[in-house]
Amino acid sequence: MLKKCLVELIGTFFLVLTVGCTVFSVGGGAIPAIAIGFALMVMVYAGGHVSGAHYNPAVSIAAAVRGALPWKDLIPYWVAQLAGGALAALVVSYLVVVTPVEQQAKFNIPALIVAELLFTFALCYVVLHTATDKDTDGNSFYGLAIGATVTVGAFATAGICFGAFNPAVALGLLTMGTACWKVAGITALTNLVAGILAGCVYKITANE
Amino acid sequence: MLKKCLVELIGTFFLVLTVGCTVFSVGGGAIPAIAIGFALMVMVYAGGHVSGAHYNPAVSIAAAVRGALPWKDLIPYWVAQLAGGALAALVVSYLVVVTPVEQQAKFNIPALIVAELLFTFALCYVVLHTATDKDTDGNSFYGLAIGATVTVGAFATAGICFGAFNPAVALGLLTMGTACWKVAGITALTNLVAGILAGCVYKITANE
Amino acid sequence: MLKKCLVELIGTFFLVLTVGCTVFSVGGGAIPAIAIGFALMVMVYAGGHVSGAHYNPAVSIAAAVRGALPWKDLIPYWVAQLAGGALAALVVSYLVVVTPVEQQAKFNIPALIVAELLFTFALCYVVLHTATDKDTDGNSFYGLAIGATVTVGAFATAGICFGAFNPAVALGLLTMGTACWKVAGITALTNLVAGILAGCVYKITANE
Amino acid sequence: MLKKCLVELIGTFFLVLTVGCTVFSVGGGAIPAIAIGFALMVMVYAGGHVSGAHYNPAVSIAAAVRGALPWKDLIPYWVAQLAGGALAALVVSYLVVVTPVEQQAKFNIPALIVAELLFTFALCYVVLHTATDKDTDGNSFYGLAIGATVTVGAFATAGICFGAFNPAVALGLLTMGTACWKVAGITALTNLVAGILAGCVYKITANE
Repeated sequence: MLKKCLVELIGTFFLVLTVGCTVFSVGGGAIPAIAIGFALMVMVYAGGHVSGAHYNPAVSIAAAVRGALPWKDLIPYWVAQLAGGALAALVVSYLVVVTPVEQQAKFNIPALIVAELLFTFALCYVVLHTATDKDTDGNSFYGLAIGATVTVGAFATAGICFGAFNPAVALGLLTMGTACWKVAGITALTNLVAGILAGCVYKITANE
Repeated sequence: MLKKCLVELIGTFFLVLTVGCTVFSVGGGAIPAIAIGFALMVMVYAGGHVSGAHYNPAVSIAAAVRGALPWKDLIPYWVAQLAGGALAALVVSYLVVVTPVEQQAKFNIPALIVAELLFTFALCYVVLHTATDKDTDGNSFYGLAIGATVTVGAFATAGICFGAFNPAVALGLLTMGTACWKVAGITALTNLVAGILAGCVYKITANE
Repeated sequence: MLKKCLVELIGTFFLVLTVGCTVFSVGGGAIPAIAIGFALMVMVYAGGHVSGAHYNPAVSIAAAVRGALPWKDLIPYWVAQLAGGALAALVVSYLVVVTPVEQQAKFNIPALIVAELLFTFALCYVVLHTATDKDTDGNSFYGLAIGATVTVGAFATAGICFGAFNPAVALGLLTMGTACWKVAGITALTNLVAGILAGCVYKITANE
Repeated sequence: MLKKCLVELIGTFFLVLTVGCTVFSVGGGAIPAIAIGFALMVMVYAGGHVSGAHYNPAVSIAAAVRGALPWKDLIPYWVAQLAGGALAALVVSYLVVVTPVEQQAKFNIPALIVAELLFTFALCYVVLHTATDKDTDGNSFYGLAIGATVTVGAFATAGICFGAFNPAVALGLLTMGTACWKVAGITALTNLVAGILAGCVYKITANE
């Protein structure tokens, strides 16, 4: 269990580190979305065989609903993921200059909820079908599929929401000081609801 | 069957959602083509083991011609795909500001037909060879190959046609109000002809 | 054999079509290199199980030297590849406005030879190790590796040479009118020499 | 052993050639990071079955710590990698105009160390988990994961350090004349420390 939590912490750390370093040092264009998706992909491929490579409380709850993660492991996974995200945020604050929250464009909250809900759902749906389904067991594409879903979501929702799709990323943005409590909280909550929803839809759509 | 149609609807929904959100919020450059190809890829990897993951009436007719989809399933697949595309178009209209048809550049119709025909043919040819052929059974690359074909087509035909290669995308663009009936109709029809053609060419080129 | 040649023709056709359509309609930036690599990748995945998916006379000669292609098949493969390339060039001339040769920047010939030699060598070396070696048999990455090698070469040699790495592409550029006989000929010849070299180096480096 | 060293030399040569040619002829944007990651990926896929495809003294020391490379092979591997890197630097100097070290922006050394340490650690961690672990044996994703880690690191650390993550790249930059002895030396040393660290963390996190 400690091994799994360490892998979750390392993976989430590098995911949130990449979010912060590419968003604030590059600041737009195609680079952050590609870098973030790739960061998730490589950590999924590295850690999948140890912990399942969630790196995302919404994915962990989706896995729990689907029966791929024991409910009793949910809290340890969440703690490791949030710790990794917060730790990365501190390193980001040291390495780059973060845009403070008051200089951020304000999001339209209902649109933010729709966008975070849809793409977090897509992410969890893709994770469950490619990384926990017997039909696709032993495939080599799960990391690519999972990482690319985040890239797609980040491109599609640019300007509408943070494109977190992940409460650990939301916490990271809060810790960096680029998101306020309200928007980070709504984002994280929406992500968790989407995860639960994806767990249910997976059960309807899977062959098992 | 309901399971398969639900998977086709979800996949086509996210494909057309990505088309609309990236074309109108980013508006050019390399992002839409990459995002759209990735969206197709992830949904193919997620749903392939359930429905075959066509998300495209032209691919479904190609699969029917090739014998990989029972003819009686064609209409239910088409309905699910078109419903997913239309539904996504409504969400796009809520999330982003769509460029109306009258502000669109006019396409040269014969060139549009050649371009849509060639790349829809390529898409269906790639699908049949990578996802329905016994020789390539069990591979992990089919989603990457299928998604990347759409990316290539979108890059290659920029300014010549919508780069739909998919009647469900054509319907989505019509529903968003960015394509007129005539161009959407010609595009959709050309896509279906290309699908039938690819089904025939597959039979000549496959080893089976 | 006809089946194999048809697959070679179709694949080379779409490769050269993508070269022409992205270079002249987009004209620079990251798009052509990515689109061309992806086009090669998808056609390699689609046709590999039928013809070996060379789409390139330099790869075919490398395969012949290595013993993966019977020498008597070399000429039919070349004919199919060159026909596909020339055919695509005609379609390119219809779809986009080609930059004529006299408006092209002049290349430094020795640097062009070094660049075409090195990356055509890399391409053939990657093909032989990933698609013809018993050690890597049954892998799902060969198309990605092969396509990405061309993308790398195109990025690395921008401004130094055409980045053809393929006599069928050189012939295509000649047919479109964007390359002169001299540069296209030197390019094609260099590509073939690099293919032979890669065949020899493969034999030294492989475990077999 | 000679075979392995030749493969390490060829792979490191093309990696450093791509670094030099894309950084100095393109000079920024998304292209170098993508091209360099792809170059590593294709050479990993081509040579992995022969030498393990390290192309990086830090990866070799990580593999030695983890027990995937005999300690007695470490020096020959390093020699081949450094020779490949230096050789490539000479070709780069012929093909493109290198920005001399005095025109380079000065890095903040502590931040450079943090950035090189973190992403070289990530690279070696990904290599050990995807290419040397029994759990992931026979997968087709190791090259993609390894190459993409370098792309992520290059995007994330732009402006903070050279983004070498590899002493052979540091030596290459020194040979090209774009890095000074001090920065190249600190980079290379940091990379090796990160490799040792990753070897240790792998042993804690792996299931074996």
